[in-house]
Amino acid sequence: MFKTEYRISFSDCDPAGIIFFANLFRIAHIAYEELMNDIGSSEVFFPVSNFLLPIIHSEADFINPIQYDQLIRIDVEVSKLKRSSFELEYKISDGRGKKLGLIKTVHVAVEKPNFKKTELPEEFIAKLDPHVRR
Amino acid sequence: MFKTEYRISFSDCDPAGIIFFANLFRIAHIAYEELMNDIGSSEVFFPVSNFLLPIIHSEADFINPIQYDQLIRIDVEVSKLKRSSFELEYKISDGRGKKLGLIKTVHVAVEKPNFKKTELPEEFIAKLDPHVRR
Amino acid sequence: MFKTEYRISFSDCDPAGIIFFANLFRIAHIAYEELMNDIGSSEVFFPVSNFLLPIIHSEADFINPIQYDQLIRIDVEVSKLKRSSFELEYKISDGRGKKLGLIKTVHVAVEKPNFKKTELPEEFIAKLDPHVRR
Amino acid sequence: MFKTEYRISFSDCDPAGIIFFANLFRIAHIAYEELMNDIGSSEVFFPVSNFLLPIIHSEADFINPIQYDQLIRIDVEVSKLKRSSFELEYKISDGRGKKLGLIKTVHVAVEKPNFKKTELPEEFIAKLDPHVRR
Repeated sequence: MFKTEYRISFSDCDPAGIIFFANLFRIAHIAYEELMNDIGSSEVFFPVSNFLLPIIHSEADFINPIQYDQLIRIDVEVSKLKRSSFELEYKISDGRGKKLGLIKTVHVAVEKPNFKKTELPEEFIAKLDPHVRR
Repeated sequence: MFKTEYRISFSDCDPAGIIFFANLFRIAHIAYEELMNDIGSSEVFFPVSNFLLPIIHSEADFINPIQYDQLIRIDVEVSKLKRSSFELEYKISDGRGKKLGLIKTVHVAVEKPNFKKTELPEEFIAKLDPHVRR
Repeated sequence: MFKTEYRISFSDCDPAGIIFFANLFRIAHIAYEELMNDIGSSEVFFPVSNFLLPIIHSEADFINPIQYDQLIRIDVEVSKLKRSSFELEYKISDGRGKKLGLIKTVHVAVEKPNFKKTELPEEFIAKLDPHVRR
Repeated sequence: MFKTEYRISFSDCDPAGIIFFANLFRIAHIAYEELMNDIGSSEVFFPVSNFLLPIIHSEADFINPIQYDQLIRIDVEVSKLKRSSFELEYKISDGRGKKLGLIKTVHVAVEKPNFKKTELPEEFIAKLDPHVRR
């Protein structure tokens, strides 16, 4: 389990005074970037990488309103791991047990530059493995 | 069926050269705003409204990469309409039959300022009705 | 003079109910992209281009609050044109004479991929010329 | 002097692989929010506040390209302090002496909800005072 925190900024929120829904997807991606850094796979975001991991599906449940200046906790797990794709699940909470939201992102490995589906490198799968939900 | 168009801007895209996934959710919301304007319900976004329509669920399939400067077409339908909530479905295409993505947003009516679930006003339901999928 | 329009979206605005200041810079960039399309120079945003035009300076005066759903008009002019750089000026108004804001962006030509300063191509200067303020 | 750090995320960057200029303004605002928290004035961002501090001018010099995953340091000072307005200056660096950018924001006190210019509260001026450049 990988966990991180994020403080909601003014520009994350809309005129209703709560986080704009699309920004929670953006924040989940930041947690994904931190996970990639943590497992030593940050190269997937750089031009040097010979594969890309575009998101082919994503979904979110917005359970409780999230407000400006709120410090949220994000717990990330690999909820599915296949040959060519994986799913990440992000549990958003207030850090004291109150659920705020749940996000999923499904990533598929594709070759550069033609976006043709390929297999996840063995080494990458090995690095993700400790974060797979048991 | 309500339809609109949107041209992908430079800042919608990320270093991989394609639209950043969270931005397609943001663009779907713009189509939702235009639908509300079209049916004469833009007040749902203004402080004068006595109810809010927060998004409690959203999901997206990203079918084909969407690139900078691409003109996308968005077809919006009410895919579900209940007493207190409704679901919108946004079909994203290139306008020539090629599917690019599919987004759903589920909205629930809540009172201001306590975010307590309430019923959708009759008048609002009547305005949404012509856009319900048959 | 190049002019365009933009409707302020919900996510452009912050909890104060007006446009978040950084988003007006983003919107000015959309007008710049449209100008590049208009003069046939959209390649400056694509990987094929052999030069980049990064912004080295930008400034804005926010004259009147801009609100959700407001249709703004953007008039763009080339306010300076030099061998290696140019300045764009964006006058933001409500389309009926009321000034809302003024933005400037200064762009410098650099080589790819080393970001070394270079000269603007003759052909590009010729295309910008009709939009230079006289 | 108030200082903070920020790690550049994937969605902060554009297809040129560097930070999109408008996002550096957004990041400066996050540093401003942290400064307000630090001096005990976070209420300026909440509905309870009886005044607002809209930005009436902002400018930026982009000195060196800022890339994905870069950890930037932001030093914030009050560069001007008047009866009704103040200016903040944000020095952006890599934390090892290399200058990356310089941003300024000018804030003016206005009454709610009519946006009429007013004076900064004495208490607020006193809290800003330790951060005024000497």
